[in-house]
Amino acid sequence: MEILYHQVADQVESLIRDGVYRNGERLPGVRMLSRQFGVSIATVLQAHQTLEGRGILEPRERSGFFVRVPDVEAPEPAMASQASRPMPVSARDMTIDLCADEEKRMVPLATAIPHPDFLPIRQIQQASIWAARHGLETLDYAFPGKSAFRRQIAQRMATLGVAVTPDEVLATNGAQEAIIMALRAITRPGDIVAVESPSFPGILQALEVGGLRAIEIPAHPSEGLSLEGLQLAMEQWPIKACIAVTNHSNPMGMRLSDDHKRKLVTLLEDAGVPLIEDDIYGDLGHSGERPRPARAFDRSGNVIYCSSFSKTISPGLRLGWIVPGRYFNEIRQQKYFTNLATATLPQMAVAHFLEQGGYDRYLRGARRNYRDAVERLRTAVVRHFPPGTAVSRPQGGFVVWVQLPEGISGTDIYRRARERDINVAPGIMFSTTGKYENCLRLNAANPWSARIEDAVRTLGALAAHVHSDR
Amino acid sequence: MEILYHQVADQVESLIRDGVYRNGERLPGVRMLSRQFGVSIATVLQAHQTLEGRGILEPRERSGFFVRVPDVEAPEPAMASQASRPMPVSARDMTIDLCADEEKRMVPLATAIPHPDFLPIRQIQQASIWAARHGLETLDYAFPGKSAFRRQIAQRMATLGVAVTPDEVLATNGAQEAIIMALRAITRPGDIVAVESPSFPGILQALEVGGLRAIEIPAHPSEGLSLEGLQLAMEQWPIKACIAVTNHSNPMGMRLSDDHKRKLVTLLEDAGVPLIEDDIYGDLGHSGERPRPARAFDRSGNVIYCSSFSKTISPGLRLGWIVPGRYFNEIRQQKYFTNLATATLPQMAVAHFLEQGGYDRYLRGARRNYRDAVERLRTAVVRHFPPGTAVSRPQGGFVVWVQLPEGISGTDIYRRARERDINVAPGIMFSTTGKYENCLRLNAANPWSARIEDAVRTLGALAAHVHSDR
Repeated sequence: MEILYHQVADQVESLIRDGVYRNGERLPGVRMLSRQFGVSIATVLQAHQTLEGRGILEPRERSGFFVRVPDVEAPEPAMASQASRPMPVSARDMTIDLCADEEKRMVPLATAIPHPDFLPIRQIQQASIWAARHGLETLDYAFPGKSAFRRQIAQRMATLGVAVTPDEVLATNGAQEAIIMALRAITRPGDIVAVESPSFPGILQALEVGGLRAIEIPAHPSEGLSLEGLQLAMEQWPIKACIAVTNHSNPMGMRLSDDHKRKLVTLLEDAGVPLIEDDIYGDLGHSGERPRPARAFDRSGNVIYCSSFSKTISPGLRLGWIVPGRYFNEIRQQKYFTNLATATLPQMAVAHFLEQGGYDRYLRGARRNYRDAVERLRTAVVRHFPPGTAVSRPQGGFVVWVQLPEGISGTDIYRRARERDINVAPGIMFSTTGKYENCLRLNAANPWSARIEDAVRTLGALAAHVHSDR
Repeated sequence: MEILYHQVADQVESLIRDGVYRNGERLPGVRMLSRQFGVSIATVLQAHQTLEGRGILEPRERSGFFVRVPDVEAPEPAMASQASRPMPVSARDMTIDLCADEEKRMVPLATAIPHPDFLPIRQIQQASIWAARHGLETLDYAFPGKSAFRRQIAQRMATLGVAVTPDEVLATNGAQEAIIMALRAITRPGDIVAVESPSFPGILQALEVGGLRAIEIPAHPSEGLSLEGLQLAMEQWPIKACIAVTNHSNPMGMRLSDDHKRKLVTLLEDAGVPLIEDDIYGDLGHSGERPRPARAFDRSGNVIYCSSFSKTISPGLRLGWIVPGRYFNEIRQQKYFTNLATATLPQMAVAHFLEQGGYDRYLRGARRNYRDAVERLRTAVVRHFPPGTAVSRPQGGFVVWVQLPEGISGTDIYRRARERDINVAPGIMFSTTGKYENCLRLNAANPWSARIEDAVRTLGALAAHVHSDR
């Protein structure tokens, strides 16, 4: 005789497999399911435990049971081949379109900007009002950073295994400015900088404004930056700096292991090449545990640590920071000469929010939300895109990297999608060499909706259509 | 028989001449003076009218009568000689010390930062609270500027005779960043840029971070940038841009006449050299009338207009703007690549403040306060500095440029003053050639106090002492 709660569990599982209850969604309450299946509440709870055992349901304290489909079965994107030579960076105008005001009516799958639903709006709003009220201070320049903010950052850095004093921290207008200041301090136009490939477009843009050349080092889709590739490049070229997103990199979402980070730090230290570490996604690991940055393995000040709150509190605050290590004086001067100081009000608001302790509480929920959003988007891509499509398996963050079958142009899809008011980031933005022409990056940090699902379906159809044309 | 109110007027005038009532101060009320001199209120009022006729008192609506000593008699600083060649800009570390946190306990005569008493603190605080409350928007990127802010700027520009749409305005982190973005867009390292001499140090720093060379064009202490000098330099050197603070420049405080501005715009337009106009002090003219910027005479988009609210609302907001004219796309890209956007909250707060109409009301008082503060500081310098000292006669803004007798080192005074906790800006910061070694710049935007008066006395004594040593 089949056990009753197994029958209920099987029925719920089919509903999930059929997409009635989707990944990341909350199941109806036990009382409602007990009515729906005509069984007791105890039976429903037993069924839930069974599904939890099968790894399909996840209980969350005080919130009920959530669908948690195991990783979608999809091939991972292939690793790029080693770059043959450094490339100048230029003509990247396409990026600007992704962010401009006039694009905001489109389905926002292009930018790596979280929808406000993923952000601690109420908390930062209250903290901003507090900061505005304690206003006299907000009127003064805060160079090189408001001390309350620098103190909070030093405290957080300590929890990541990085011992710094508040005086070693500089406030910046986001991580992008931090990277720009670091590059300006340690490079001159024409210099060669090693970057991961595929590369976050902002890093390529930073190289472009500095008149720098990029040597692209392939990144493994789950292990990250190839150390062999980096070593090879350093033997061939006079590399002046290396930039790496060490945790949940954009676009592939992988993190370097501690061992990998330690080796990377040592390799660069031995070669006398500074590492510019971008840890902007470090707080958004899907597994919940906060990976250490490469800076935690640095003993000589050769790692220039950059981060920001743009992905975790609010992009509009324009608030990041840099821990410049041994390049402190040069980077401090660059920041001062470029725009003197970072706006005081956002620094006071964030310092207050961090001090009140709400940030870590918020992060716990945000990590889960981002993970669920990424899984749901991956599921939709697998469902709607043509066979042969590979999808990244991010360990954190909220973007998904899609590699289309050979011969399908991501740029074509980008153009055609825009005609349908869907905005995506074409793969060509992620390299100086055009090597990701058959890729797309999609932003998962949107509340799931029929509009998003339709957009993914449309993208998949476009991919299939472009394919069959050839 | 001498008329009674003439006697009272003479007595009040001696009290003013003796420094009992000082320039910019409010006289005691008529009731109190009537008791003090044992005369009727009507007699006091007649005496006041007499002093008003003598140009010593100034009535202010609902506030009483204020001491308004005619311009202090002091020679104006001499005009520098024409530069012989372009100079690289480097090693300007001294500037940073002026602004660092650890300097804030000193008597603040060094930086061009207004004391909060001169700023509309309550208004911007209320506007910031309003902006924080309307908070959802503040979470998003505001690239290339929050539309409410850009609209307010376009409206203000229209009142200055500059017709621009909000779309032609970009928000920046202060005017310094605007100048940096403009330079990055139109120059390459090694290029030559024409600057006024003496130069605002921030402009020299902007050239330094861009790897640019400065050709210094002498500025006349009351007429401004020498057009003949500029023309001569353009004939000799391949100048790529010209930077000018057209209204109440820092450090000399003079404004260019409309005719001068028109000629400057035409000269540069004909030569194909863009003008980067810094109008940060334009709203702070002492005479009350708002001079037009050079941009108002530009018909071809060759003038890149830069400004900010750092001197008029709050430096800590880090909020400025740029109207890039024909260089719009290049400058927009520089801004985007450097730090994506300017913080949203300050933009919303300032837009709200401007929209509410409080800014112009505030400016009327601020202009008078800055004028009085400048006059008081000039008076103190004339009183305490050695004979042969020349003092600028600013038409706006709040800094005073002091030229010491030949052979007196401003750098020596700077060093010795710091030992006594007095911070001043030494003349060498205002040129790449060391030609202002015998100059100092003093910040008048501090509430007058015994501490400030003592500091000026100390500086004067140091100047006399250094002099007698030689």
